[in-house]
Amino acid sequence: MKFLHTADWHIGRRLHGFDLTDEQTTAFDQIEQLAIQEHVDGIIIAGDLYDRRLPAEASVALVNQMLQKLNLADHFPIYAISGNHDSATRLATGTPWFKQTDLYLHTELGQAFQPIEVGDCQLFLCPYFEPFEAQQYFEDESLQHLDQAFARVVSEMKKAFDPAKKHLLVAHFFVAGSATTDSETNLTVGGLAAVPTDLLVDFDYVALGHLHGKDALHADRARYSGSPVKFSLSEANQQKGVWIVDTDQSPITYEFKPLQPVHDVKLLTDSFETLMSSETDDSIDHEDYYGITLTDRQPIPNVMARLRTVFPRIVTLSRQDGYSAQVSYQGETSKQLKQKAPMALLDDFYEQVAKEKMTPQQQKWAQQALKQANEGGTNA
Amino acid sequence: MKFLHTADWHIGRRLHGFDLTDEQTTAFDQIEQLAIQEHVDGIIIAGDLYDRRLPAEASVALVNQMLQKLNLADHFPIYAISGNHDSATRLATGTPWFKQTDLYLHTELGQAFQPIEVGDCQLFLCPYFEPFEAQQYFEDESLQHLDQAFARVVSEMKKAFDPAKKHLLVAHFFVAGSATTDSETNLTVGGLAAVPTDLLVDFDYVALGHLHGKDALHADRARYSGSPVKFSLSEANQQKGVWIVDTDQSPITYEFKPLQPVHDVKLLTDSFETLMSSETDDSIDHEDYYGITLTDRQPIPNVMARLRTVFPRIVTLSRQDGYSAQVSYQGETSKQLKQKAPMALLDDFYEQVAKEKMTPQQQKWAQQALKQANEGGTNA
Repeated sequence: MKFLHTADWHIGRRLHGFDLTDEQTTAFDQIEQLAIQEHVDGIIIAGDLYDRRLPAEASVALVNQMLQKLNLADHFPIYAISGNHDSATRLATGTPWFKQTDLYLHTELGQAFQPIEVGDCQLFLCPYFEPFEAQQYFEDESLQHLDQAFARVVSEMKKAFDPAKKHLLVAHFFVAGSATTDSETNLTVGGLAAVPTDLLVDFDYVALGHLHGKDALHADRARYSGSPVKFSLSEANQQKGVWIVDTDQSPITYEFKPLQPVHDVKLLTDSFETLMSSETDDSIDHEDYYGITLTDRQPIPNVMARLRTVFPRIVTLSRQDGYSAQVSYQGETSKQLKQKAPMALLDDFYEQVAKEKMTPQQQKWAQQALKQANEGGTNA
Repeated sequence: MKFLHTADWHIGRRLHGFDLTDEQTTAFDQIEQLAIQEHVDGIIIAGDLYDRRLPAEASVALVNQMLQKLNLADHFPIYAISGNHDSATRLATGTPWFKQTDLYLHTELGQAFQPIEVGDCQLFLCPYFEPFEAQQYFEDESLQHLDQAFARVVSEMKKAFDPAKKHLLVAHFFVAGSATTDSETNLTVGGLAAVPTDLLVDFDYVALGHLHGKDALHADRARYSGSPVKFSLSEANQQKGVWIVDTDQSPITYEFKPLQPVHDVKLLTDSFETLMSSETDDSIDHEDYYGITLTDRQPIPNVMARLRTVFPRIVTLSRQDGYSAQVSYQGETSKQLKQKAPMALLDDFYEQVAKEKMTPQQQKWAQQALKQANEGGTNA
């Protein structure tokens, strides 16, 4: 059997205020085309279809349309689970009817133990759950942490193992030892809230969701697909895509297929002058999303508006070592500082922060300001 | 064919802060039982399944469970539409899959023109829509008001009429001449926002939703089912239930089947003493919801807490002609009033409002207060 493994669609998500619908629908179209070209037997979506538990109507319409397209128009079986960003209850709407056309969308822990039999494979679809749900389900209060709960879940799944078949797990968790990015919210990175990799060894392939980079984990036969779209600057250098999993090979193979973004997310570090030059103007894609770090230290009037004429989609703007650089302590005592003239103090301070001397014009302004301050003024 | 006609479930609705889940699930159970006993061929739900466009998770779970029970467990075909309280977009989730088991839930105007063929009947399921949606659908800006838009909708439906069949319309609107209650929100009662009854004459039966009383309209072959539960004090005297529509009769018959509430909604007007008497205590159902009007005029300390010992579910409490009775104008001119002594003015005013003279103690307090006022006081 051949499966396409994707996850973390996060429909409804925005990138620092920018709408990502265009990026997400384009990624979806590419996923659909890949599924068709690769003649997959089903599509695995390992959680976080939505970005929030209470999605906007537009997001609901989009996800409905996507599932409808893949399942009813293209006739792909779908093996999906709810993630921590989804509302399991809302996502469950329609699921008893979906099964009729092999759209499996598991949102309750109990469903994890009813494997879907597909050819020579058993698929265990384990929705995201909190330890207290495992406590309730197993009526076992000792399941305090995710590692304990997940061990119990796996042992329950193994009761349903058909030894003649291959066993695939679809899950949405942080697996111990994985590398994270900025965009995975609600994430506790730590031993107790993580699934140890040795709990995954009984499966022939583990299709993971939750982390947004495909390289987050390199365990044996377990992969995060990553999100189809870059959701933060920390994902700027990630290659987004999906896995094509072939269970007919022994051991199972999984090949990464990249997706091409409409507008990429990029990091740029350079001087204002270079960024505004015609060379830059000619070489960049103006519609990409940019995280810009300026190497300049001096004030640049109206800097954001001017940069936006070249980079309309600036996500963040910062200074590499500008205004905000640390003032280094020069070793003078408080007593010594108090004996310095105000203008000398200002001179020193400016030089420490801006890494350069005040210009004669700046000194003139500073002296005028100090004079006014010394003369005292009314509040008129 | 035999249909059960219900509407306005408003799952998630509260009655002055009281949770109605118990009332609603009990009414649902009775509807289900009626459908089974009457061997109906389908269940019509004429809009407002939810009370709000953004229902809580608990409401979503409840509606999902109800539809699943009727359609998947009991195998009843369902003919439903979205009402003005529903989010058409959210309610549309799953609908393309629902059709496989004859659950039709129309949420878009365009779907109104594709009749569902059931035996010798054509069912036109017309979701609630605003005139601008008809303007867009028909690309006709002249459809400014609901009457115009609905006339266009009916003429479009008639193109699909099979003359050999009976024609049923399921819709969610205010029909001109209907009687309203307090609990139908967002309701414009007026000619332009109402559907004239003469637009309904081409149908053999019109199953309406929107108004909460079964007697709201007595047009020929057009009925509101009303809500299954009383949602306001103005519905206290309504009999709730559903219609059983039999299209095999000529003309079509429709019989009202009542539902029994777990806790009724009642109006009580009496003196505090009578309401707190042991006779009342013995005769009433303590768990019912009460709108209480006191005939007393005098202040009653801690009145709500004391009444709640007998009526734990007080919805509203008011005075029949107590504190808030209108002051009747005695015919004195402004000039005459100004010449009266303050104490005389107060005497008159008290008597007009309280319908009785001040007691000597009250007069003493009033005189003390007036004296203090005349002496002037500091703001300390």
